[in-house]
Amino acid sequence: MENKMRVAVMTGVAKIELTEREIPIPKADEVLVKIEYVGVCGSDLHYYEAGGIGENIVKPPFVLGHEAGGVVAAVGEEVTNLKIGDKVALEPGKTCGKCEFCKTGKYNLCPDVIFFATPPVDGVFQDYVTHPAELCFKIPDNMDTMEAALIEPLAVGFHAARQGGAQAGQTAVVTGAGCIGFVSMLALKAMGVTKIIVVDIMPKRLEKAIELGAAAVINGKEQDVPEEIMKLTGGQGADLMIETAGSEITTRQAIHFTKKGGTIVLVGYSPTGEETLPIGLAIDKELTFKTVFRYRHIYPMAIEAVASGKINLKGIVTDIFSLDEIQEAMDQSVKNKADIVKSVIKVMAD
Amino acid sequence: MENKMRVAVMTGVAKIELTEREIPIPKADEVLVKIEYVGVCGSDLHYYEAGGIGENIVKPPFVLGHEAGGVVAAVGEEVTNLKIGDKVALEPGKTCGKCEFCKTGKYNLCPDVIFFATPPVDGVFQDYVTHPAELCFKIPDNMDTMEAALIEPLAVGFHAARQGGAQAGQTAVVTGAGCIGFVSMLALKAMGVTKIIVVDIMPKRLEKAIELGAAAVINGKEQDVPEEIMKLTGGQGADLMIETAGSEITTRQAIHFTKKGGTIVLVGYSPTGEETLPIGLAIDKELTFKTVFRYRHIYPMAIEAVASGKINLKGIVTDIFSLDEIQEAMDQSVKNKADIVKSVIKVMAD
Amino acid sequence: MENKMRVAVMTGVAKIELTEREIPIPKADEVLVKIEYVGVCGSDLHYYEAGGIGENIVKPPFVLGHEAGGVVAAVGEEVTNLKIGDKVALEPGKTCGKCEFCKTGKYNLCPDVIFFATPPVDGVFQDYVTHPAELCFKIPDNMDTMEAALIEPLAVGFHAARQGGAQAGQTAVVTGAGCIGFVSMLALKAMGVTKIIVVDIMPKRLEKAIELGAAAVINGKEQDVPEEIMKLTGGQGADLMIETAGSEITTRQAIHFTKKGGTIVLVGYSPTGEETLPIGLAIDKELTFKTVFRYRHIYPMAIEAVASGKINLKGIVTDIFSLDEIQEAMDQSVKNKADIVKSVIKVMAD
Amino acid sequence: MENKMRVAVMTGVAKIELTEREIPIPKADEVLVKIEYVGVCGSDLHYYEAGGIGENIVKPPFVLGHEAGGVVAAVGEEVTNLKIGDKVALEPGKTCGKCEFCKTGKYNLCPDVIFFATPPVDGVFQDYVTHPAELCFKIPDNMDTMEAALIEPLAVGFHAARQGGAQAGQTAVVTGAGCIGFVSMLALKAMGVTKIIVVDIMPKRLEKAIELGAAAVINGKEQDVPEEIMKLTGGQGADLMIETAGSEITTRQAIHFTKKGGTIVLVGYSPTGEETLPIGLAIDKELTFKTVFRYRHIYPMAIEAVASGKINLKGIVTDIFSLDEIQEAMDQSVKNKADIVKSVIKVMAD
Repeated sequence: MENKMRVAVMTGVAKIELTEREIPIPKADEVLVKIEYVGVCGSDLHYYEAGGIGENIVKPPFVLGHEAGGVVAAVGEEVTNLKIGDKVALEPGKTCGKCEFCKTGKYNLCPDVIFFATPPVDGVFQDYVTHPAELCFKIPDNMDTMEAALIEPLAVGFHAARQGGAQAGQTAVVTGAGCIGFVSMLALKAMGVTKIIVVDIMPKRLEKAIELGAAAVINGKEQDVPEEIMKLTGGQGADLMIETAGSEITTRQAIHFTKKGGTIVLVGYSPTGEETLPIGLAIDKELTFKTVFRYRHIYPMAIEAVASGKINLKGIVTDIFSLDEIQEAMDQSVKNKADIVKSVIKVMAD
Repeated sequence: MENKMRVAVMTGVAKIELTEREIPIPKADEVLVKIEYVGVCGSDLHYYEAGGIGENIVKPPFVLGHEAGGVVAAVGEEVTNLKIGDKVALEPGKTCGKCEFCKTGKYNLCPDVIFFATPPVDGVFQDYVTHPAELCFKIPDNMDTMEAALIEPLAVGFHAARQGGAQAGQTAVVTGAGCIGFVSMLALKAMGVTKIIVVDIMPKRLEKAIELGAAAVINGKEQDVPEEIMKLTGGQGADLMIETAGSEITTRQAIHFTKKGGTIVLVGYSPTGEETLPIGLAIDKELTFKTVFRYRHIYPMAIEAVASGKINLKGIVTDIFSLDEIQEAMDQSVKNKADIVKSVIKVMAD
Repeated sequence: MENKMRVAVMTGVAKIELTEREIPIPKADEVLVKIEYVGVCGSDLHYYEAGGIGENIVKPPFVLGHEAGGVVAAVGEEVTNLKIGDKVALEPGKTCGKCEFCKTGKYNLCPDVIFFATPPVDGVFQDYVTHPAELCFKIPDNMDTMEAALIEPLAVGFHAARQGGAQAGQTAVVTGAGCIGFVSMLALKAMGVTKIIVVDIMPKRLEKAIELGAAAVINGKEQDVPEEIMKLTGGQGADLMIETAGSEITTRQAIHFTKKGGTIVLVGYSPTGEETLPIGLAIDKELTFKTVFRYRHIYPMAIEAVASGKINLKGIVTDIFSLDEIQEAMDQSVKNKADIVKSVIKVMAD
Repeated sequence: MENKMRVAVMTGVAKIELTEREIPIPKADEVLVKIEYVGVCGSDLHYYEAGGIGENIVKPPFVLGHEAGGVVAAVGEEVTNLKIGDKVALEPGKTCGKCEFCKTGKYNLCPDVIFFATPPVDGVFQDYVTHPAELCFKIPDNMDTMEAALIEPLAVGFHAARQGGAQAGQTAVVTGAGCIGFVSMLALKAMGVTKIIVVDIMPKRLEKAIELGAAAVINGKEQDVPEEIMKLTGGQGADLMIETAGSEITTRQAIHFTKKGGTIVLVGYSPTGEETLPIGLAIDKELTFKTVFRYRHIYPMAIEAVASGKINLKGIVTDIFSLDEIQEAMDQSVKNKADIVKSVIKVMAD
């Protein structure tokens, strides 16, 4: 019995149940991690309720979850950077190291990546996982493993802010006050950007944005977003904007409220993937559009940013569930998006 | 009579007539240039046939033309970089030098720019013009003033290639085999890019592309553009593409045929300015979109590229008219876009 | 009498006396600033005690001082960005706006710059000065004019940090805990760098570094600097270092303790200007060396960084003197470099 | 006997003899390459005559040679990018793919690199070698395997030009007209730089520089280098310079003749590794110093540049020896540096 672990298996659309599997054994360059917390990502919810995302179709049994923090429980014989007991954040993607993208440092674009919870690769809603030691980043004593788990979404925020060339002194706008909007805001703050305006249509989320450090918020349902941003920037417009709402309307507005020569970072996917945009205006203003697919070499800096106390990463979490409650966690997170901004599964026992 | 010059004045939509005006006198920091050649730009044709572009409305009498090459005829008392007899290429935009954009080197975005032939500022379809000496770039002996005139469109091509981060060894696609497509191609060549694929729907223009050095051409009417590009690149896709056709379909195709992590440079304006695009796919591939509004600090390098013999700039010219024939030049250029890729007005006497 | 002002004139080496001059009248694009605080820079002290720096020789009567903050007292008729009563920080260099350097955004390299207190241009140890409105940056209500004056040295720090490509998550070393070392540290902090190690040989200055937020300090007299930095970075070395001590030994150490692929930013001038360095080692490690001459387009971001409360700019000031005490201020600052890190002249009446 | 191959083994300082070894068998992800040409590098000569470079000491028997071109003779079972008969250029360094440097695309700084002919790793002066398929780059039909071998030094030139940010339109200076100076020049040309000034002290080498496309040459023994460069650049100085001579004097001159804001790329090692330089002047001019250690992800672009016919890579070769003549090749190359700029060992039979 001792070498068994709990695994939350998706057995069909909107169905998850706990089963038992063998605890895996790490290879020479791997560690075994006892998982303590796993964040619930929008993609997990989408796989759960729709059974797939684009061409990635879930074939049950499948394990969701890719935002994991835990403690090293065993180390492979070649591992030198970690020891049993180390708290770690797990970067979920194993890449080939040999393709053009890996070689040039853009490993997030590796076509052969193996990524937790992207079909057919299982995720980590379970007690243990083996993972390459180089992808397990030790966190310092003043951080806990829930923060370790949240390094994954924060990495998306940092990559977005870096893609946008965020710099101290800029005025930035973040559209969409969900998990990714918040981590983008936190990343901007950690990079020295203090004037951050957050746009959403749900008052609760805008309150949360203020709580997490937004300089101003705009309710897109009640206010004219470009007009408000022009007012807030003395008619200048934003230097940088990060779009996480995944809606055509916010991208369109962004083209209007971004300063000439400014940068728009597209992170959110609109429902159809298609957007009709005023490209002519974007050319007139010589705007740049950057896009974000996951992240690359962010973990060490994101851990440092959290450890230094500059940002309140746990502040984005609204709900914590135990692994036993996972079906409820998924169901509620899907149904109640106004209130549940970010759920985390507490895998460890209390 | 000696201090009079000919000026081609647009007196109404699709009407130009020659009149006489006083030859201007250069200020202390200006030179007087005897104009020899002026290129006819797509924007000149648009003002000519439509009476305006967007919010810029022509109020006759108005002078078109902003691609000028000529010879210095007089110099202001403070001018030190030029002397009478020097052949020069004229950069057409005077900028404030003080705003945020000018200060940071992005002077093409200066809101107070005064630009030849952008209403209400007159252009240069005339015998003489005074212009700041710092905007008149001396060309070497082995170049002539028709090439000097064509430095202006070439500057757009270079800015597009630079915005795209063009580098030796890349595979680039240029969509649209008109003047701006050709100068983009020439700029790419001058920057060391040798694998350039050109896409258009007119066979004559594709032939010209081959003549000017395209490695391959694709007829978008007859061939599946993304499929062909995948074939030509061994399934890799293009590193970089420059869109000059101003059509949604080519931008859409570009999102399909550009390599993951690649860059799309948008130069052409579609008729409505709006484009419906597969943004979700662009995010999946982490593409970058850069845009081009005129150019900045390109003249010296563009002159050098032409002077070195690396590119055949005059090869883009299909038709030469005298200043006396200007109405005919404009009318034919408007009507016969299949054949007349690039007209030049020869202002100087034979 | 009302149109007279006090001016502190350097009448010879180590001699300054107060005289009266006419209050100047602003030109159309200038403002008249009533000066409240002027920082004392190392270059002021050098001109004061040595009568020149390199080829710049003081010809008395000459006015020192270029770090100024004040209040707008009159505005030229074309000025739109400022009004009487605005508190402003003065960027001291007027540039030509036309040369290659100005055009490309590197205006700090403009050969025709006119810079306060660089012979033969007078500085601002006086009650009033006229200055181009575009070079007077309004500070917000929560900042005072002493902070406005200190934006000038802070700009050097920000330029150094930017030249070094400072990024959140890096480990940075600053050698030299004087004014420029401190502002470099503050700039790094504002840009999100939290692990900053400061090196000096004076314990008092190292204490100040800790007070201003250094993560660790090293006494170069008592400790082996590269060895200590290796210890503090887990054997990795520093990502980035900023050299402000102006000594060969610190640059040499930097080549040893900077990580492979890292960047060394040289700001300080060694006494002779010559340094013997292990260049072969720098090549083996593929290090980059950046250098710093003044700064460019930093004022707005530096003001924002101070206004946001992220850094304690006034914390660098150790001594405040009135304009009447200026000779004493200069003499003491020259003599007692161990204690007087940064003096400020309070020009305004109490 | 069929599975035996010739190997040129260094058996002591300045001693090489041919022996026989087993032809190796490729692993799953490797190919077996029948070597046709191997270039002789300055580092090979140094190991040969001095028995070591810095901390890298040759322990005989040792095989020199790392610039190899050949033909695929067998492929491991997982290899998909190559087939028997393909002509290939071999990138000599195998890197870990997992360290910070590899992950961020700076694999040339990988501390665990295994590099041909860097003790204790054998090189390729032999008939066959097995090598990872990902490091064997197929060359097109219009290139031969001598050019394939020379891609290795050309990669250093390209990396130098890229580190320097070489751009069309710049004026570049290359000091040192040896192999690395020449490949730097060829790389600059391929990247669109046409104004290249080459400096050396040997007339024969300067003639070769002209032959390979230098715009001008300067004999550092007979002419005042900075003065000549100022003349050739109209008093502006060079935008970019690449130092390959490995001497303090040329680096010192570079600081004088490089334009304000310009870049100096250090490639050559001076005999002691120490250089005394006017760092104060470099700061005044805000120069950047980049350094070069090998290269990264250059092979595909370098092959493309040669295949396109833009540069004459074989033009750098002055002497060709057979493998049987290798001792003579090494001895002559060491002794006669004035005449033998670049030797190549022809390993294949005639």
